Amino acid sequence: MPYQVDFEPIGRRIRVESDTTLLDAAQRAGVLLTAICGGEGSCGRCIVRVMSGQVSSPTMIEQAELGRDRTAAGWRLACQTIIASDVHVHVPPDSLATAQRTQTEGQAVPVELQPAARAFDVQVAPPTLDDLRSDAARVRAAIPLSHLSFDARVLRRLSSELRDAQFHLAALVRGNEVVGTRPAGASPLGLAVDIGTTKLAAYLADLQSGETLVALGAMNPQIAYGEDVMARINHAISHREGAEQLRAGIVDALNGLARDLCAQALRHVADIADAVVVGNTAMHHLFLGLPVRQLGLAPYVAAESAALDVKARDVGLDLAPGAYVHLLPNVAGFVGADHLAMLLATGVAERDDVVLAMDIGTNTEVSLRAHGKHFACSTASGPAFEGAHIRFGMRAAPGAIERVSIRDGKVHYQTVGNMPPTGLCGSGILDLAAQMRHANIINARGAFPRDGNAPRVRRNDRGFEFVVVTGEENGGTEITFDRKDISEIQLAKGAMRAGVNILLKHAGVTDADVDELIIAGAFGTYLDIQSGLDIGMFPKIDRDKIRQVGNAAGAGARIALLSVAQRERAVQIAHQIQYVELTSEPDFQSEFARALSIG
Amino acid sequence: MPYQVDFEPIGRRIRVESDTTLLDAAQRAGVLLTAICGGEGSCGRCIVRVMSGQVSSPTMIEQAELGRDRTAAGWRLACQTIIASDVHVHVPPDSLATAQRTQTEGQAVPVELQPAARAFDVQVAPPTLDDLRSDAARVRAAIPLSHLSFDARVLRRLSSELRDAQFHLAALVRGNEVVGTRPAGASPLGLAVDIGTTKLAAYLADLQSGETLVALGAMNPQIAYGEDVMARINHAISHREGAEQLRAGIVDALNGLARDLCAQALRHVADIADAVVVGNTAMHHLFLGLPVRQLGLAPYVAAESAALDVKARDVGLDLAPGAYVHLLPNVAGFVGADHLAMLLATGVAERDDVVLAMDIGTNTEVSLRAHGKHFACSTASGPAFEGAHIRFGMRAAPGAIERVSIRDGKVHYQTVGNMPPTGLCGSGILDLAAQMRHANIINARGAFPRDGNAPRVRRNDRGFEFVVVTGEENGGTEITFDRKDISEIQLAKGAMRAGVNILLKHAGVTDADVDELIIAGAFGTYLDIQSGLDIGMFPKIDRDKIRQVGNAAGAGARIALLSVAQRERAVQIAHQIQYVELTSEPDFQSEFARALSIG
Repeated sequence: MPYQVDFEPIGRRIRVESDTTLLDAAQRAGVLLTAICGGEGSCGRCIVRVMSGQVSSPTMIEQAELGRDRTAAGWRLACQTIIASDVHVHVPPDSLATAQRTQTEGQAVPVELQPAARAFDVQVAPPTLDDLRSDAARVRAAIPLSHLSFDARVLRRLSSELRDAQFHLAALVRGNEVVGTRPAGASPLGLAVDIGTTKLAAYLADLQSGETLVALGAMNPQIAYGEDVMARINHAISHREGAEQLRAGIVDALNGLARDLCAQALRHVADIADAVVVGNTAMHHLFLGLPVRQLGLAPYVAAESAALDVKARDVGLDLAPGAYVHLLPNVAGFVGADHLAMLLATGVAERDDVVLAMDIGTNTEVSLRAHGKHFACSTASGPAFEGAHIRFGMRAAPGAIERVSIRDGKVHYQTVGNMPPTGLCGSGILDLAAQMRHANIINARGAFPRDGNAPRVRRNDRGFEFVVVTGEENGGTEITFDRKDISEIQLAKGAMRAGVNILLKHAGVTDADVDELIIAGAFGTYLDIQSGLDIGMFPKIDRDKIRQVGNAAGAGARIALLSVAQRERAVQIAHQIQYVELTSEPDFQSEFARALSIG
Repeated sequence: MPYQVDFEPIGRRIRVESDTTLLDAAQRAGVLLTAICGGEGSCGRCIVRVMSGQVSSPTMIEQAELGRDRTAAGWRLACQTIIASDVHVHVPPDSLATAQRTQTEGQAVPVELQPAARAFDVQVAPPTLDDLRSDAARVRAAIPLSHLSFDARVLRRLSSELRDAQFHLAALVRGNEVVGTRPAGASPLGLAVDIGTTKLAAYLADLQSGETLVALGAMNPQIAYGEDVMARINHAISHREGAEQLRAGIVDALNGLARDLCAQALRHVADIADAVVVGNTAMHHLFLGLPVRQLGLAPYVAAESAALDVKARDVGLDLAPGAYVHLLPNVAGFVGADHLAMLLATGVAERDDVVLAMDIGTNTEVSLRAHGKHFACSTASGPAFEGAHIRFGMRAAPGAIERVSIRDGKVHYQTVGNMPPTGLCGSGILDLAAQMRHANIINARGAFPRDGNAPRVRRNDRGFEFVVVTGEENGGTEITFDRKDISEIQLAKGAMRAGVNILLKHAGVTDADVDELIIAGAFGTYLDIQSGLDIGMFPKIDRDKIRQVGNAAGAGARIALLSVAQRERAVQIAHQIQYVELTSEPDFQSEFARALSIG
């Protein structure tokens, strides 16, 4: 095995024979590159960048697919590239298959460590007749902080725990309050949570090292009461116990995630001394048990927008006995703490050029920072890209079609886990819409041409539909996509694009002025940028100016977890933002109508 | 009705005919002077001081009872004194019958008002499309405090309460945290509680005016689990749910008192923004749910001695949603927050002379401050003076004999509420022991003389007994007092006196050096000083140097409730005190044995 191949930033290394392709090397190294066509070079998805080392020259296929500039910069299709020395290869997130991309979210976030909680080694002498100080006074003397106080529940256990531990233990201290005691040597843990309308992301971090130990995702159980924020708010205000159902549901889910994270890290929830929770304003309020009636009615005001520190137990979270939960500020309307977290993670608020950031989810929040001015809005994009309201829509579970290409009337696709196809997840839905438009199966209004004479197009009881997967090729299970599905996509992308356009107008800039477009959110990680551009979900800007950053809200929550300075920074950012309430914008309806157009 | 009579400090005024006695005037004014003999001048209890105005000259009886100096200073027996002009009369607390003295405890305490909680009038504009600030931000802007935060539970109701109140309400703010919202105009209330081992005293104060609105007493329900602190601690550590039973019991009782206080004041518990709770170290710990195992074993250390601020809800109290409870510091051993409260109320810690302060209860704490040095100890005096362990002992309920005098073989007594006698309460027990010794019915060792030939003395199955009330004079109900009852009194007073003597030794002073003896505690209010001196419960000092201050711990709790500066002061005092652990004093056993002697 003469050559060593390093895949970055995922951090995998493998030795391979000469004449091995980068795609083969990646597969053997466990780096799951997207390869719809199975390595034939026809899908153009296994894009990587060779950073150093010798490889074969770009093929004709690559030059056609990537263009001369990009190939010159080292961009390659992994299936076309043969290794000829030790090489370092950069793998961009959107070349990775779904499962792998979820994994990469667990990595460390870059921030100067300044956690709110620390652990102190406490070793004290037992009381004697000559030293009648209280147990708490003993512990206080062993910790080099002034005005140290004790959480009431910690005090309740302190005397017995000191004695059980032979007067030697670790004190978890947040600020200058002892919030827990643990066996000597324990490091303090932190929990960062992004409460999405549809999905939850939770991270367990070691507050001493800053390392993210484990990351886990889960569905937001509130989905049972409504798919989008307005449905949730309606449930909360129209059912007697509605708000409490929503609150208890999310709290139970977070407690479950905390336990699972700790189980995987071989730690205990009592090690968690501090937590940061972010979410849009509705998720934030429902989690805290704050009222949402006024949030659901014009002019849509929050009960509280300031940053908050609350005792975990007061919001029902079972962490260290005196642990706190920090909530980043909300901005206004539905632009909430999750958006500020995204801004922390992406550095948008430090930019002096023109940068647009879209955090795509069931609610899509958009920030436009242009020459020091910062505008933000929230758009009700809906859960179509989560697979909801789409006839064959599904979550990105095994068997979900996540990539589609239509070439010469043939449909090529890739499923999560390479399982037989059972439905379409968000990125597959987006690809499909873009490819159907590209192949002229639908027109710019999203309609099938009157004659419906294209291959794989037929009538169903709702109108025309496109057969994505035939029963023959899939053991009898058909997967189709019809006019109504396309409408859902149009509504979703139309809402996003209208929001973007309104913000551009407010800032007095155009698509062409945008120096960077940042795409955040779980779906934002998986989607194919070109497909998004093709259907007009994004403004018309150069593909190279678009950056996919994954769950940046989750990353921002972790940044805030690891740094109290960053929490302060979030407050400053919140004050800089000019919130734009789309529903009161005179142009919104016309912008929206225009933005429904596909491509 | 030519003459006006003012009774101070109780604040009653009445007009009377000439030739009326002060006792008659007092009775008609509702001032319940003690008068065992029914106004014959033979019991010497209805002592008052004429401060101004003309009255009859002192009778022979008065001169014999009070002495020349005191009569010259205006001290009189009310039953012997005839009104001859408008007069002002001072009524000392120990001349008042029980019921009345409880009433007087509700008066204002002298302290510069500096409460931890205030109410702010909040009137804000409703949100509009031009003003999308959160509800909390609106309230924050209306309150002239910086860094204002909201309790999580207050936030949960804020939006609906703002709207229900047409955006005009009162915000209860403690420190810089909004702990409750109330109807506009509401003043903030405070709750001060003294948790005695046997009795609870609770006070409701208006934090704006400093006025004590209502005072209530109740039994400590923990009595069901043991009469003294050691019995409680044993219950807590020897029963699985023992500590929780004790905690829940006291918390339920305090919640009940808070509700009753508010009901009487026509207010709501949600008006209570701040509370101060004091008690000895064991009561303090059991209330907070702190561990007591280490407090029950040598060297008897507290879990926590520092001053604490905890959320009321975290200790189970149902006040304003975000209300706090402040706990004064403990000193050491069982000398707890209640003792510091007593010191705050009496000013002992400011004294440069020699002052002794005894807070008499089931546990009696003693402070000796001598020329700037401050010593304190705790003595297990037991509940005998609460009526426990005494055959015919009872609480100071109607029918309890509260005053006794034995003259010429006849027993004179007064009962609470002038009801037929059903038993003996603490002050009656003390009087009885002193009078039996005075009449030589018992000797200094507490024994009945061998022959038992005195009037009303007879044998029972436990030895000799004295018939206090015969069946003939009381419809068949006898009340007796025997050798074992006397032993209980000896043990109680012996413990107190031994503690006092040990402190005097530590300070290097003697009885004669004591400039003032302060007697605190509910029983301390009702007891007859002379009886206490006669049986040797107090050191031999001049009667005029003895001051009865009532429930000074309760008064101190109110002082701390009304002034955060006084809370700081308590911390300073705690640091000055040298705690003396009696059980490790070599002299304690011999001092105790000597102190058992009566008179």
